[in-house]
Amino acid sequence: MNKLAEDLNQTILTNAPDVFNMLSPLGKELYFPKGILSQTAEAKQKATRFNATIGIAKEGAEAMHLPSVMKQFSDHVPNDLLPYAPTTGKPELRNKWMEQMLIKNPTLNSKSVGLPIVTSGITHGLSLAADLFVERGDILLLPQQFWGNYNMIFGVKHGATVKHYRFFSQNNGFDTDDLRRTALEYASSGKLIVILNFPNNPTGYSVTESEAKAIRDVLVEVAEGGCNVVAICDDSYFGLFYEDDVCKESVFAYLANQHPRLLAIKLDGATKEDYVWGFRVGFITFATAPANSKVYDALEKKTGGAIRGNISNCPHLSQTIVLKAMADEKYLEEKQQKFAIMKARASKVKETLSQEHFAKVWTPYPFNSGYFMCLRMSGIDAEEFRLRLLEKYGIGVIASGKEDIRVAFSCVEENDLPVLFEQMYQCAREM
Amino acid sequence: MNKLAEDLNQTILTNAPDVFNMLSPLGKELYFPKGILSQTAEAKQKATRFNATIGIAKEGAEAMHLPSVMKQFSDHVPNDLLPYAPTTGKPELRNKWMEQMLIKNPTLNSKSVGLPIVTSGITHGLSLAADLFVERGDILLLPQQFWGNYNMIFGVKHGATVKHYRFFSQNNGFDTDDLRRTALEYASSGKLIVILNFPNNPTGYSVTESEAKAIRDVLVEVAEGGCNVVAICDDSYFGLFYEDDVCKESVFAYLANQHPRLLAIKLDGATKEDYVWGFRVGFITFATAPANSKVYDALEKKTGGAIRGNISNCPHLSQTIVLKAMADEKYLEEKQQKFAIMKARASKVKETLSQEHFAKVWTPYPFNSGYFMCLRMSGIDAEEFRLRLLEKYGIGVIASGKEDIRVAFSCVEENDLPVLFEQMYQCAREM
Repeated sequence: MNKLAEDLNQTILTNAPDVFNMLSPLGKELYFPKGILSQTAEAKQKATRFNATIGIAKEGAEAMHLPSVMKQFSDHVPNDLLPYAPTTGKPELRNKWMEQMLIKNPTLNSKSVGLPIVTSGITHGLSLAADLFVERGDILLLPQQFWGNYNMIFGVKHGATVKHYRFFSQNNGFDTDDLRRTALEYASSGKLIVILNFPNNPTGYSVTESEAKAIRDVLVEVAEGGCNVVAICDDSYFGLFYEDDVCKESVFAYLANQHPRLLAIKLDGATKEDYVWGFRVGFITFATAPANSKVYDALEKKTGGAIRGNISNCPHLSQTIVLKAMADEKYLEEKQQKFAIMKARASKVKETLSQEHFAKVWTPYPFNSGYFMCLRMSGIDAEEFRLRLLEKYGIGVIASGKEDIRVAFSCVEENDLPVLFEQMYQCAREM
Repeated sequence: MNKLAEDLNQTILTNAPDVFNMLSPLGKELYFPKGILSQTAEAKQKATRFNATIGIAKEGAEAMHLPSVMKQFSDHVPNDLLPYAPTTGKPELRNKWMEQMLIKNPTLNSKSVGLPIVTSGITHGLSLAADLFVERGDILLLPQQFWGNYNMIFGVKHGATVKHYRFFSQNNGFDTDDLRRTALEYASSGKLIVILNFPNNPTGYSVTESEAKAIRDVLVEVAEGGCNVVAICDDSYFGLFYEDDVCKESVFAYLANQHPRLLAIKLDGATKEDYVWGFRVGFITFATAPANSKVYDALEKKTGGAIRGNISNCPHLSQTIVLKAMADEKYLEEKQQKFAIMKARASKVKETLSQEHFAKVWTPYPFNSGYFMCLRMSGIDAEEFRLRLLEKYGIGVIASGKEDIRVAFSCVEENDLPVLFEQMYQCAREM
């Protein structure tokens, strides 16, 4: 094992022994390499005469560039777009995201969490969390409705075994009882990975504040019982909360700094929050109990090593453009306008689906947030329904499991939503 | 194992049994998921009325967007920058890159290789190649001078065991004899991973045409002897060839379609070729023998699965901007101008280093291409030299191993190069 990895492990073992035990074999091996990276960083500070360390091309103080590239931007200089970004992201963007995270999640102001590390989108954050903390045979708890890519990231690529709990309770809330039952059932394995994805893909459900607290209590109970818990909050759709009783903070805010055997990881990003899906700007943030800056630093270095050994660094131009947008005086107002459009669509879906005749063919799952909502079809095969709807009506929806249909109201105009569901109803009636 | 993975494996086993044997356990498990992705693709074709499959937000036919983001671009529409790019990359860019690859490597016109798949930079291509083909204990052959990140990607993250051969022969060429000796020594393991990085980081050396052919002959001999060979051509610095006798084509062009037990993988990208380091636009291209489109399709699907389960997709805006630059009528002329600057710097380095007094303190390694050149210090510790040069002279260089110093002439002006080396000489003389 590399000496740098051993040093990081010793730091984590000394200051957060339970977190050390959560590390996968790969997580233990990871370190942030010195060599070129640290020598370049040193030269950046001290090479006042000539700096011949840099792995890019320069003309004078400026990054070498093709005008055919630069002219596609309105007012950026080459150095802000073209060079490699630091492995863990642009410091200004990391600080700005942290500042916003505290505003969006007031509960975090009384907590102490690591500085967000830039990832190349939120999937990359999931992948990094898996690199550090998931090894073959680890149990991953997911609700029955979940984003299919978790299977690829955690199952295929990292060998986790997925166990499901019921998403919805009988009173149409989040089924914390079944989460608790399932978590306790598998707690004897000594380690649980739990992904908490609210607003949820595919259901569009977000927990209430009391449900968020109940989730926290369950995970603390499991940790208290001796089981290590890696709780990954996938906050991809954060902020798109449409109803009053929905918890407006990430569950991460409730899980942070709660128990030594409960490591909370927040994954979020500009992807959906700022409508820049293809930019690939996400973040990963750690919270241990007690909070410890040495542990955060060690986890950051291991995460940096995992990024370096995977994609070297995340897109610089995307980080710069998001940072500049966030600093724009119109930014919050523009986001509010888009939020209003999305919320109006969600309301229109609810209003439309409240019509009685629809109950003959489907039952909507509870939804209150995000991009999507799901219907449980009544005695109709979801895939057959999807195909018929597509072929005969020219309408595309997602068959998500044997009986569930996912509708992305994020990409249908408010006025079209009643027609959409009416056509879906007609199609279902024919089957 | 997923049924889709089994089907891909069967295709590869039937049409390229040796390539099947090269797959790592993870490589065998990988598949391109259906579900949301294929349903969305189907809807894109057929959902003429409403398409509620898409995981982004839209207003009318346009991606929802913040003006504070879009105004940072000069003349792009939201749909070309903001939505997710396809997992394996924008088709237009893949085709354009292929077209250019054939122009840059005329030998490939008589070969048949897969369509380049977009990666998030060239490191990501290395990482994907490792996902598919490298498992714990595999032997990776590298020359004594090599890019340190290969250790992290192949060693730490995928468990490969690195074995080194001498880079330079006594007549200052590439040491194909030592490559051959080392490859044959480890051929009994049944599988060799070989990374061929020309122009090389850190030495700045590229092989001649006869050396490229000799490398091909060595690898074919090893394959013929019964050992599987995964030959990875890291062409990051492709095109920056400064001398007449340097081979102007990738070694990949010589390795493609040569032997059933020799899989050739080409990794290249816009990163250095187009001076867009932070954009993260790379490509991975496969060549089997005999060429087989079913095998290429299966490898593409496995690569797509590896991308999906790691970062979902690669930055869309970067792909669009590179594609548009490549289509610009000034593009080739602009690249030629930058090439001329880089070549003039390389010539100035050679001219400067030809002065006799320098021989007292160092010996330059052969170089003829790329961003860098290396000096072997004579009886001076490289790290001590680096630190002294930085502290006393304000000059930054990289200590690369115990006695080697890497100088990036890519980021020093031509006129400054004589002063740079003179100061380095003075510093060395003081030690």
